[in-house]
Amino acid sequence: RREMAAWARAVRGLLLDVSGVLYDSGGDGGVPIAGSVEAVRRIKASGLKLRFCTNETQATREKFVKKLQGMGFDISVAEVTAPAPAACRILKERSLRPHLLVHNDLVPEFAEIDKANPNCVVIGDAAENFTYANLNEAFRVLIGMEKPVLISLGRGRYYKETDGLKLDVGAYMKALEYACDVQAEVVGKPAKAFFESALAEMGVPPQEAIMIGDDIVNDVGGAQRCGMRALQVRTGKYRPCDENHPHVKPDAYVNNLAEAVDVILQQL
Amino acid sequence: RREMAAWARAVRGLLLDVSGVLYDSGGDGGVPIAGSVEAVRRIKASGLKLRFCTNETQATREKFVKKLQGMGFDISVAEVTAPAPAACRILKERSLRPHLLVHNDLVPEFAEIDKANPNCVVIGDAAENFTYANLNEAFRVLIGMEKPVLISLGRGRYYKETDGLKLDVGAYMKALEYACDVQAEVVGKPAKAFFESALAEMGVPPQEAIMIGDDIVNDVGGAQRCGMRALQVRTGKYRPCDENHPHVKPDAYVNNLAEAVDVILQQL
Repeated sequence: RREMAAWARAVRGLLLDVSGVLYDSGGDGGVPIAGSVEAVRRIKASGLKLRFCTNETQATREKFVKKLQGMGFDISVAEVTAPAPAACRILKERSLRPHLLVHNDLVPEFAEIDKANPNCVVIGDAAENFTYANLNEAFRVLIGMEKPVLISLGRGRYYKETDGLKLDVGAYMKALEYACDVQAEVVGKPAKAFFESALAEMGVPPQEAIMIGDDIVNDVGGAQRCGMRALQVRTGKYRPCDENHPHVKPDAYVNNLAEAVDVILQQL
Repeated sequence: RREMAAWARAVRGLLLDVSGVLYDSGGDGGVPIAGSVEAVRRIKASGLKLRFCTNETQATREKFVKKLQGMGFDISVAEVTAPAPAACRILKERSLRPHLLVHNDLVPEFAEIDKANPNCVVIGDAAENFTYANLNEAFRVLIGMEKPVLISLGRGRYYKETDGLKLDVGAYMKALEYACDVQAEVVGKPAKAFFESALAEMGVPPQEAIMIGDDIVNDVGGAQRCGMRALQVRTGKYRPCDENHPHVKPDAYVNNLAEAVDVILQQL
């Protein structure tokens, strides 16, 4: 804690993961994590730069932000860095026409993208759309290409909803990778380009930014590889065994976002 | 061909893959591959030992054999080596109680196995049972264990049915492996123990046996690693690019089972 106080003094910007840090998602829309609504408000009042850095791909940013606003969070679409817009930039740059294996509610993010006669597959957290038939269809598009192109909106293993743990996009990405003997290009955390675009949007260099997340690999490990400090919260998908992770060690643990903000704001 | 004629002289037993060699499977039950019914009959008349070595896990051996008999094949349950009975032996030996993620029609193979309070997951080609909900359920059983045990009835990437290519059990195995950070134990081809038990059932040493299959990795590569010769047929899931496989080279190619049997029987 004392060590953290020392480096927290240099901080000018915070990157917050959303699911598992601000709220616990679930079929009913989810519930805010105690103290997080107030913590976001305090960050904004402090003058620190703030960016919400999410791998959420079950809804458009508009819908996602509206849900969080409904829970009381002070958040706007312009403050959110998310995988779908990042993927759209790549698709346009490389003239790729995607077959989408994504959640119905994410489809509007791809409204301006040509999807006729697909020459790649984009996979997101499709949830109920991860049916046997839909996976076979995406597989057939890939295996029919001379060099299959698979773009994955994240590589998370699983996440926690109010009714339990669920497989995340990374698991289904691995299934298609194996079946087609191809390596997916990951957009979203932990991709370096994704964190870098969030930092650029804040105008803060990595050494003056802190990432706060519940995912030891995708939030903490990814941010650290970009030169940021990273805290793991003990909410969301956090599990005690994360503290013995063989490769990734957070710069500090905090019980939740509220505690992280307490410690950081005390140093300013 | 001349080279093949030389080593085919020493053969005393044949191992035949079933799907893609004897017949093409499909929603309607499938159709025999031209010449294969007669080819099986000729093998039996020749006095060669014969074993059907399948990774089929969409039905009990009884039901599977009945389907093949209905197509005209001379085949009995006692001649079939299949993954489910091999898995049952392992479950009993190690007092494992499985949560089953398998095809409904395979469940009777596990009738005598205690499935209460599961301490492992057995995954087969569950086909329509590979729903989002069922995958999450199997995942939760695994992630809740201190050391997750995942037993997979094969590691095939995909197979061909009459209505197109479909993801095989290996793809879903990879999804669970990744989500739980665990390595599955594979029962069925290409596991060495599986081929060895088929050889033992025939009473033929590997150097006097030939495997005939359509899967370059699981049939051909697996059999060769046991010291057998292996032919790839150009039926079933065969694709021309298999002939440039980076690791596996069949001892010979044949257009189909009938041609393989022609060449082999000419040497006896």
